[in-house]
Amino acid sequence: MAEHTVTFDIAPEPVHVPTGTLIVEAARLAGVDIQQPCGGQGRCGRCAVLITEGTVRRRSTLRLSPEDIAAGYALACQTVVEGDVMISVPPQEKIERRLTTDRTAAEVTVPAGYDPAQAQTIRRIKLTLPPPSMSDQTDDWSRLQTALRQQAGITETHASLALLRKMGPVLRAGDWQVTAILDAEAWDCLECPARLIDLRPGHLPDDAPLWGVAVDIGTTTVTLWLVDLLTGEVRAQVAEYNGQIARGEDVISRIIYASKNNGREELRNLVLETINALLETACKRAQADPQDVVKATVSGNSTMMHLLLGIPAESIRLTPFVTAINHPPTLPAREVGLAIHPEGTVDCLPGVASYVGADITAGVLSSGLDDAEQVTLFMDVGTNGETVLGNREWLVTCACSAGPAFEGGGVEAGMRATKGAIEEVWINGETFEPTYRVIGGGKPRGLCGSGLISLLAEMFLTGVVDKGGHINAALPTPRTRVGERGPEYVIVWAGESGTGHDIAITHVDIDNLLRAKAAIYAGFTVLAESVGVSLESVEQVLIGGSFGKYINVEKAVEIGLLPDMPWDRFQFLGNTSVRGAYLALLDREARARIKDIAARMTYLELSADNTFFEAFTSALFLPHTDLSRFPTVQAAIVS
Amino acid sequence: MAEHTVTFDIAPEPVHVPTGTLIVEAARLAGVDIQQPCGGQGRCGRCAVLITEGTVRRRSTLRLSPEDIAAGYALACQTVVEGDVMISVPPQEKIERRLTTDRTAAEVTVPAGYDPAQAQTIRRIKLTLPPPSMSDQTDDWSRLQTALRQQAGITETHASLALLRKMGPVLRAGDWQVTAILDAEAWDCLECPARLIDLRPGHLPDDAPLWGVAVDIGTTTVTLWLVDLLTGEVRAQVAEYNGQIARGEDVISRIIYASKNNGREELRNLVLETINALLETACKRAQADPQDVVKATVSGNSTMMHLLLGIPAESIRLTPFVTAINHPPTLPAREVGLAIHPEGTVDCLPGVASYVGADITAGVLSSGLDDAEQVTLFMDVGTNGETVLGNREWLVTCACSAGPAFEGGGVEAGMRATKGAIEEVWINGETFEPTYRVIGGGKPRGLCGSGLISLLAEMFLTGVVDKGGHINAALPTPRTRVGERGPEYVIVWAGESGTGHDIAITHVDIDNLLRAKAAIYAGFTVLAESVGVSLESVEQVLIGGSFGKYINVEKAVEIGLLPDMPWDRFQFLGNTSVRGAYLALLDREARARIKDIAARMTYLELSADNTFFEAFTSALFLPHTDLSRFPTVQAAIVS
Repeated sequence: MAEHTVTFDIAPEPVHVPTGTLIVEAARLAGVDIQQPCGGQGRCGRCAVLITEGTVRRRSTLRLSPEDIAAGYALACQTVVEGDVMISVPPQEKIERRLTTDRTAAEVTVPAGYDPAQAQTIRRIKLTLPPPSMSDQTDDWSRLQTALRQQAGITETHASLALLRKMGPVLRAGDWQVTAILDAEAWDCLECPARLIDLRPGHLPDDAPLWGVAVDIGTTTVTLWLVDLLTGEVRAQVAEYNGQIARGEDVISRIIYASKNNGREELRNLVLETINALLETACKRAQADPQDVVKATVSGNSTMMHLLLGIPAESIRLTPFVTAINHPPTLPAREVGLAIHPEGTVDCLPGVASYVGADITAGVLSSGLDDAEQVTLFMDVGTNGETVLGNREWLVTCACSAGPAFEGGGVEAGMRATKGAIEEVWINGETFEPTYRVIGGGKPRGLCGSGLISLLAEMFLTGVVDKGGHINAALPTPRTRVGERGPEYVIVWAGESGTGHDIAITHVDIDNLLRAKAAIYAGFTVLAESVGVSLESVEQVLIGGSFGKYINVEKAVEIGLLPDMPWDRFQFLGNTSVRGAYLALLDREARARIKDIAARMTYLELSADNTFFEAFTSALFLPHTDLSRFPTVQAAIVS
Repeated sequence: MAEHTVTFDIAPEPVHVPTGTLIVEAARLAGVDIQQPCGGQGRCGRCAVLITEGTVRRRSTLRLSPEDIAAGYALACQTVVEGDVMISVPPQEKIERRLTTDRTAAEVTVPAGYDPAQAQTIRRIKLTLPPPSMSDQTDDWSRLQTALRQQAGITETHASLALLRKMGPVLRAGDWQVTAILDAEAWDCLECPARLIDLRPGHLPDDAPLWGVAVDIGTTTVTLWLVDLLTGEVRAQVAEYNGQIARGEDVISRIIYASKNNGREELRNLVLETINALLETACKRAQADPQDVVKATVSGNSTMMHLLLGIPAESIRLTPFVTAINHPPTLPAREVGLAIHPEGTVDCLPGVASYVGADITAGVLSSGLDDAEQVTLFMDVGTNGETVLGNREWLVTCACSAGPAFEGGGVEAGMRATKGAIEEVWINGETFEPTYRVIGGGKPRGLCGSGLISLLAEMFLTGVVDKGGHINAALPTPRTRVGERGPEYVIVWAGESGTGHDIAITHVDIDNLLRAKAAIYAGFTVLAESVGVSLESVEQVLIGGSFGKYINVEKAVEIGLLPDMPWDRFQFLGNTSVRGAYLALLDREARARIKDIAARMTYLELSADNTFFEAFTSALFLPHTDLSRFPTVQAAIVS
């Protein structure tokens, strides 16, 4: 096949590729990063590049106008090279890469009476071996196993080849005094031998550091807690955007991206880079050595779990929507690729279904829903809206695709809840002038999830939008106008904004927000109906997801995201996923409990019938087609 | 540190190394192979090179004469670079790399009533899974585990990450019909879940190939049998010199070599290359795909086992002579580095002590000694002389370092039992003219072990040597003479030899042979004494080691290698080590038995007291100081 030269204006060197190569492929070879938020499906249009010279073939031109095409634009993910080509790459929208972690830091209470000797599966044991002699020529490994049996009651031990290789020298360096670190319990095999993680010469002091990490891999954000296993204390909390974001903003886009070429390996490496960078940051902050981190528990939705382990996730998005694996086996860190101690344990928490993953079982664990007496609703408001309903007797769950609107995705002015994000908005009912609060003070640069909810509620109550979400362009204010993207409302004028541009919300944005809230609302209503429970009889609503923590309930009810019930029934729990991972990291009973939760939960597939679609359609209004469901909102509108 | 340029006359490019670099190191960098039969200890003198220019420092000059040193010779393993140097490498003695495998091919009888369904730990199972549907969204892995439980009674299964990665696509490619290959039993953990080795789409026919290999890693020779696991038949037998030979001829030299720099990794790679090349040859011969080889059992002495696994072996040669591990855990082939199916099982057989390894337990297993009613002596005559004495009630064992003389090492004209080797010699008592038989016919190139034993016996009986092994140079024959290396006896004149040189045996050679036979004889006599058993009461003598197979008992008794007892008590079993590996490969009962053998055997450390040394010294004569121990030899001499 013919070879062509592809020259990118921002790459140091041209690359040579055969006919038919996608521009994104050529870009990868050239070291040029082209964002593909839709996962390379040709849907988002964000990978458009300018062909300044040469022949290409456009497979799809969705999102490109005839003028764009005439000017030479092409979607990099949908266009193949057919000759020598010169390509100009427009500046990529840079994702704000640094989270303000203070904002997301959670208050963590160490479980009462935490005693590592009782609760930990990790054991650190000081051993004194009788040295070998001409009258006792037992081999090192048997000698060590005997000491573990006699001095620590560990009947069977398994060691990796790496450990067996270092064993002899370590035993001798410590003059037959050693400290063994073991994991006494593999999740998938309670009967299996304890696994030797490390062997150190001499007797480590009792207060020598011993660390664990709890990790939550969100589709958007990865959170890592560094935990002192001796005390149970969280010594550092760090969070960062998932490095996979530029390869798809939601799980479906990621799965599609992963199914192409070496996409799976690429996504795996990207999330590992994110986690390992977080690990480094956390360790620096707590002055910990990553080699002393001997255990990790990992939570996250099923797609994130598959991508972390490099397991094909295609079946998750294709009917009948099954995962390859809901509960991965316990693995050593070297196999997973985590930069903790290479023999350290990695326990991925168990999920339930394609769209109800470990993040939800972890949420149920940390919220205590599985032990609740009252009927309780647990919601994880994120890119996917997962809901669990139940109590200590029964648990049902479902999931709906809310989209990333509440995490700042799919909304022009959306951003994460970080410095510069508007988190609350008020609109004057007469002048339609807004006031707002910005995280960290200073000039606003966009709106985070709570800001968008607040804005939408205010726009609705003041009549800036109608119940269908349509902007009333006839209002006597310059803030409503028809812009390039249709009708919009300007929250911040360019002069006051941190970006130097107007910050506005468009009709398209509102549509995305309506879809997100409708999906979530429809999810839990259908779930409740399926088990014959009325929403009124739900005695508490627990809301997980780091975004959830900052929602103003009143506003969320006003837009119809949350059910209209007394506010004291709502409780915001923050990132329940990482909290569940933290509990499982500390306590073997919590481990047993989350396994039990995964086994007990009945999964309701929403796409299996029409009920969900009808409920979704009815919820696409502000607050809902059926206003009687929202009596307090009805009252507010009337007033 | 200063960098110097080292130029080898036979290397394409010079290399650059810092001051103090050993010449062997520089040679390795330059891709020049310098043999170090003594493992780089500076003892054998075989790595001598000529320094034609530049400055070096000789740490040791053992084996070099003042003239050699004056001429510029230096031991590559003992000399460091101190400036730019030019080095000339003399032609290296080439080890004859190709064994005549026909000669070593063993007759193998498949164990009676072999039924893989009963005997094999490897199971190949055809499964038909119910496809997932909207009403059954079980994850793939649970679905597969359920099928294994319900359709094959396998309650728990473990899969590697690699298997989990391929599982989903395979299940779908086979339209939910798959063939699973599992190993139902890990040696070190009988309670552990079965291990999934492979998953193939569709139902493989019952006669689809399923292979195993039995491997014996000898210090000198590696033997591999390719076994059809469906029938138990050995379909190819191959053998080759252990690629580590040039890095030390005996285990001690190898251990020393392994302890230097990256010697351990180098030796590991060398033996893996040998095994993997044998595997390729065997697979070609039987038209087998190495990916269908799903299990390997490995036998060999303790040092070979440590070196195969890359486990430090230093403690084996240092008092109190302990191994790092006698029984390695079951490992997947990818971790060991064997080129069979990467998830295939590698079971290293269990050893007993530093110098009584898996080769001996395998020998006991395949000889049936552990089940014998009579008191039986088992000997493995190789580089190490290991002896086991016992019966079904008790087993004792010891080892002595015989040296490689009987395998053709340490003897000028010694060679392996391959084409061109003299395997039997007769000397005319009046003319002192020899006649001989050559393996494969044709011109002789040296003597193999049985030839050396035969030669020594004949020389003794005809008075060419006295009981102390001294050559009588006064005999009326040109065949005894004093050569460069002292007194010698010429077996083949240059004109008749395949090498074009005289083939002679020197006093030094005889000394090595005497030491080898004395060590072996002393070993089993001390062992018998230790348990109060007289040699006469030993009812059978089983001799293992591929060399043993061709020994002429009469001659071996005449030189005092074997005890003087009725010939019908002797039985030559060939390579009992690979045979034991073969049995363990086929039959889970044999696996259990060899574990039991290793546990039952009492090891006698010969270096622990003086008894052995005294017995050894007494045996350094032909046939022995105490002639009364050899009545038939006494009679022969007198006659």
